[in-house]
Amino acid sequence: MKNRIITISREFGSGGRTIGKLVAEKLDIPCYDSQLIHQIALESGFDENYIKDAGEYAPGGFLSSALSSRSFGPTNEDLLWEVQQKIITELAEKGSCVIVGRCADYILRDKADCLKVFIHADMEFRAKRIVDVYGEREDSPEQRLKDKDKRRAAYHRFYTNMKWSHAQNYHITLDSGVLGIERCASIIRELY
Amino acid sequence: MKNRIITISREFGSGGRTIGKLVAEKLDIPCYDSQLIHQIALESGFDENYIKDAGEYAPGGFLSSALSSRSFGPTNEDLLWEVQQKIITELAEKGSCVIVGRCADYILRDKADCLKVFIHADMEFRAKRIVDVYGEREDSPEQRLKDKDKRRAAYHRFYTNMKWSHAQNYHITLDSGVLGIERCASIIRELY
Repeated sequence: MKNRIITISREFGSGGRTIGKLVAEKLDIPCYDSQLIHQIALESGFDENYIKDAGEYAPGGFLSSALSSRSFGPTNEDLLWEVQQKIITELAEKGSCVIVGRCADYILRDKADCLKVFIHADMEFRAKRIVDVYGEREDSPEQRLKDKDKRRAAYHRFYTNMKWSHAQNYHITLDSGVLGIERCASIIRELY
Repeated sequence: MKNRIITISREFGSGGRTIGKLVAEKLDIPCYDSQLIHQIALESGFDENYIKDAGEYAPGGFLSSALSSRSFGPTNEDLLWEVQQKIITELAEKGSCVIVGRCADYILRDKADCLKVFIHADMEFRAKRIVDVYGEREDSPEQRLKDKDKRRAAYHRFYTNMKWSHAQNYHITLDSGVLGIERCASIIRELY
């Protein structure tokens, strides 16, 4: 696969998705975010043959080793993970692009020429931003951030066995709160 | 303190020191590496009054809380840490500069306008580089890297209570093996 892919992992509220879109716009390549990939997976993925097929992309074949320790077989989330792996691999084969979230860096690790990015920011910046972008909720923004961070770290760890947010897992990590969203996008664009 | 400081933490063999020097040269500001700071500390620091003075810079005063749990009092390394804190604070007060290593990011956290950088690279790149730069030793380069990484992480953890190499502790982290040493230096220079 010759296409050059930018994968962006990010803390909730850090602006990683916005940065991905800005980079993609300037480079004139598509940006696939995790919602879009999730939706494609839901629409196409629960077709039985597609899932079976998707399994071939997982390390160790269908229902990868990550799942072998489950007592009660794969969950819906496991099936979705398998399907998402296939979708991400297909998107990367189609052409150069930006992929935000869904452990794309891990899924494409031996398959594509990836620039692996991680975006983070402190609690204050992210709390303000999620209220601006997603509105108020019953839970405090700080509580929402803590819940999301915990879920993302656990998801990443479970399916990839790698530690989310460790500098060594990425080519570049950026603090969007201090450096600014536009600045982060321009650094990534220049690196590409 | 109005001076702008660049602090560089780095994995052994990743070229962090070289990157610091390149950045400093282009910006025409001094670069203090950990060897230099260690040497200043050894020369000036074991003077009794200087040490007593240095202690005031430590969190919680002389022999900071990090040391209070020691059964047998402070070690030479603890005294050196105290002196180094004072030296780094003084260097940062003197003018804008680059400081490589010695937990300068932590020491200056509430005192200066710092750009906090972490440089890393994979084992293969670093193994080749330490043989090129420091020559062959009896231990394999991989063993030397593992030992040094472990020591640096432990030192950092012990004196700062922060996890070394976590993206969230830095404004930017860079993989010098993939991006190249010159490229890393130019990104940092532009950010400053």
